[in-house]
Amino acid sequence: MKLLLPNTMALQPELPPGWESITVDADSDIPVEHADADALVLWGASDRHIRSAAESMHKLRFVQALSAGVDQILAAGFGEDVIVASGAGLHSRTVSEHTVALVLALVRRMPEMLTAQSDHNWSTDLGGLQELHPQGRLTTLLDARVLIWGFGEIGQTLAPLLADFGAHVTGVGRSVGDRSGFAVLDNETAMSRLPETDLLISTLPASASTQHLIGESVLAALPNHALVVNVGRGAVVDQDALQHALTTKQIGGAALDVADPEPLPVDSPLWDAPGLILTPHAAGGRPVEADDRIATNLRALEATAQIQHRVER
Amino acid sequence: MKLLLPNTMALQPELPPGWESITVDADSDIPVEHADADALVLWGASDRHIRSAAESMHKLRFVQALSAGVDQILAAGFGEDVIVASGAGLHSRTVSEHTVALVLALVRRMPEMLTAQSDHNWSTDLGGLQELHPQGRLTTLLDARVLIWGFGEIGQTLAPLLADFGAHVTGVGRSVGDRSGFAVLDNETAMSRLPETDLLISTLPASASTQHLIGESVLAALPNHALVVNVGRGAVVDQDALQHALTTKQIGGAALDVADPEPLPVDSPLWDAPGLILTPHAAGGRPVEADDRIATNLRALEATAQIQHRVER
Repeated sequence: MKLLLPNTMALQPELPPGWESITVDADSDIPVEHADADALVLWGASDRHIRSAAESMHKLRFVQALSAGVDQILAAGFGEDVIVASGAGLHSRTVSEHTVALVLALVRRMPEMLTAQSDHNWSTDLGGLQELHPQGRLTTLLDARVLIWGFGEIGQTLAPLLADFGAHVTGVGRSVGDRSGFAVLDNETAMSRLPETDLLISTLPASASTQHLIGESVLAALPNHALVVNVGRGAVVDQDALQHALTTKQIGGAALDVADPEPLPVDSPLWDAPGLILTPHAAGGRPVEADDRIATNLRALEATAQIQHRVER
Repeated sequence: MKLLLPNTMALQPELPPGWESITVDADSDIPVEHADADALVLWGASDRHIRSAAESMHKLRFVQALSAGVDQILAAGFGEDVIVASGAGLHSRTVSEHTVALVLALVRRMPEMLTAQSDHNWSTDLGGLQELHPQGRLTTLLDARVLIWGFGEIGQTLAPLLADFGAHVTGVGRSVGDRSGFAVLDNETAMSRLPETDLLISTLPASASTQHLIGESVLAALPNHALVVNVGRGAVVDQDALQHALTTKQIGGAALDVADPEPLPVDSPLWDAPGLILTPHAAGGRPVEADDRIATNLRALEATAQIQHRVER
């Protein structure tokens, strides 16, 4: 049996007996001599590579994506009998870490701190005696009321990290109730909670129902000190509405690791929105324990057992 | 019984029966009409205020500091029968939060992210596909080897926060062994661990034995990608040595919330040290649950019970 690995990251999965692995260029067509492979791992692959795989790999049984999203793969036209597994969960820890970095950069006023530093200004506004909970500003996660919209693997990894700083975290998702010790609300109930939300975080994927979900009405419902963070997909945020909310101080600040489109055009006014931290889709992009996932799923494939994060097709 | 509270923060402790509280200006002499008070809370007080209290408060039995350090108070000449309690622990959560903010700002390259943002640059160096553990650079706390030098209340609050991101945390302190689930080493053993340390954090107080502890030899022993963070006292770091280590890329980066002296002079070269984040003693400065501490210790005083964080004199 033959497994094709991408050249976009170092991978060394422990293969089941009888399997060999070949590393191929994830930017190019599948090499003719390897079109007979049984399984394919995709990471940072070009459209051309994926389409070539769908067209030429006649013995293909299994595609393991290392990305959480698989839209591009499903659109490529793989045969219906090809099992596709997503890389859901492989990015939860890195994306959560970046999200906390963004949240703390906002809460602890890092952009202002760095400006003061470059001005050689030991600012008594930023340092020294402080109020713990000043009016009109969120300056600590201690007792902050946090809403995480999208409570999948990333949301559930992120929630306890924020709670450890003393934040009160509530999730918003499709499976309402208690998940991993956190209350999860439906969208409608979440909307009614916005006036009591200090920090709104989106981990939502792009879809028809999430398109511009964080727009004018959500931003208007938040208190003026509220912070908004998006590490899901850019299209979830109505960027014009966010720009307006920041400019008019309707909210206290925001951080985006995703934009719509990406890369954000150089002439977008969003770059200079006041109180905004913008990072270039830097949260994840480095699957954690990918070798284990590949090995586990290849063994499951051999045993006709359950494939982890198999995508419904 | 009379308790004097400072006007430097909002306080409303639940007083034991028979006690009243008066708020006084922490910058001025103790008002003559309140020199008969039995207890005094100090926070952000001027030297003049503290010395005036030591001189004039003839019935004083108890001084509750809200700061962790009490050097200034002990130096003021209070009578030997006056019980002094420090505010140790009241700053653990806020200082730990700021420390994680600094650590993640370094690890997640926030200064470079903000520069790219201001350049309208959707940087493919900072975002997109990444290596999880690139050679020569610390880019995640996942599996990072962390040494926290000074493992008191702050160190013990900070350690689990970092561990939750996947870091392997070891403490360094006077009480060697296992504390709060973390191994604590003595100074000598810690020195031998420096070559395997990715992140060195100091929460150490200023003293003869900690003076310039983080100096030339410690910095030389760290690997070139190591990050150094100081949230203890400025004098713990030899700033000339740090500046040299950063300039020559002997270490990967640093963050200081404390300097020596404070405020850092406007012409100090440290402001512009490459790879340094400098914040103006902004980590704490806002005691958490101070009312509870005051109330608890007043009750203990009345009952001749154990005073929390009583200072040995």
